[in-house]
Amino acid sequence: MTSDGSGFRAIPRTAAQTRVLDAALTLISEHGVSGTSLQMIADAMGVTKAAVYRQFKTKDEIVIALTERELGTLEEALEAAEAEPSAARARELLLTRVIDEAVTRRRAVATLQFDPVIVRLLAGHPPFQQFIGRLYAVLIGDPSPQARLPAAMLSGAIAVGVMHPLVADIDDDTLRSQLLSYTRRLVDLPE
Amino acid sequence: MTSDGSGFRAIPRTAAQTRVLDAALTLISEHGVSGTSLQMIADAMGVTKAAVYRQFKTKDEIVIALTERELGTLEEALEAAEAEPSAARARELLLTRVIDEAVTRRRAVATLQFDPVIVRLLAGHPPFQQFIGRLYAVLIGDPSPQARLPAAMLSGAIAVGVMHPLVADIDDDTLRSQLLSYTRRLVDLPE
Repeated sequence: MTSDGSGFRAIPRTAAQTRVLDAALTLISEHGVSGTSLQMIADAMGVTKAAVYRQFKTKDEIVIALTERELGTLEEALEAAEAEPSAARARELLLTRVIDEAVTRRRAVATLQFDPVIVRLLAGHPPFQQFIGRLYAVLIGDPSPQARLPAAMLSGAIAVGVMHPLVADIDDDTLRSQLLSYTRRLVDLPE
Repeated sequence: MTSDGSGFRAIPRTAAQTRVLDAALTLISEHGVSGTSLQMIADAMGVTKAAVYRQFKTKDEIVIALTERELGTLEEALEAAEAEPSAARARELLLTRVIDEAVTRRRAVATLQFDPVIVRLLAGHPPFQQFIGRLYAVLIGDPSPQARLPAAMLSGAIAVGVMHPLVADIDDDTLRSQLLSYTRRLVDLPE
């Protein structure tokens, strides 16, 4: 569902599409994907359902577009990390960037990462799978079964580390530097 | 909503209640709480909605009961850890038990921990808040703001560490011992 089918990029969106995505994210964060309808999105925007339908044909399209909008911003950092000769330096570059995005977009991370409908939808979306594969290849390197648990834990520690009620009042800069320091332990970088 | 209002225990349930809880958990894991209705639970069980209603009056009651069923099994370990004179030993005891439960109940952890409706419901349920507070008091000890991020990350690393598609084919014993080894780094126990 990306424009050229070859990646997982943040596609430039029109202002009308952006308004739909913003309204959808707010509703999904409260009700989950299953509990959110195109009609609810239209109501929240004060427009007709037909107006929403002109921007996106299905809720699935909206969910994919939301995920691309959040994760697609990492594509450039991922390409830079893939071109970096030192694996440790590549890992550090990308980890810093992943944490930066996660902290900046706390609410979206929490909303999009764990919804069962989104998890199922993305599991059947090859561009997403390829993107995640490239991300872990840099962050963890080792493709062995032994490396998969640290990869999963790293993902959970970052996602929950930015969304948990316990950290709601920690400011972005503090959260960013603390998170980086703790996750370094998980990816075997010196602290 | 616990039987005596004084804790967060796994209350003994009748066979009929257990069947409702099992069916609800399966549906919630697929559709989220918002996307699951008492009627869907009844249909999945092949009974009438009135039959479900005789066991639990609302979906909220079912969600609280599911959470109590999963987390309530930790109450005994928590009491033992609270009575343990050595803080490090208490932390180790409880961490081992938390991971054991998380691995054994992988599917429930993923389903219950991140659903936005459940998160909101439990945030307004004091017995749950008290239980989680006691859990973190043992696992992290230090109640300072600096300790809250590691607590959140620990929670995420365990929850996502057992539910991530990357670890779906890792057997329970391997997952348990690897998870314990990695989380020790987060709670400052020697590896």
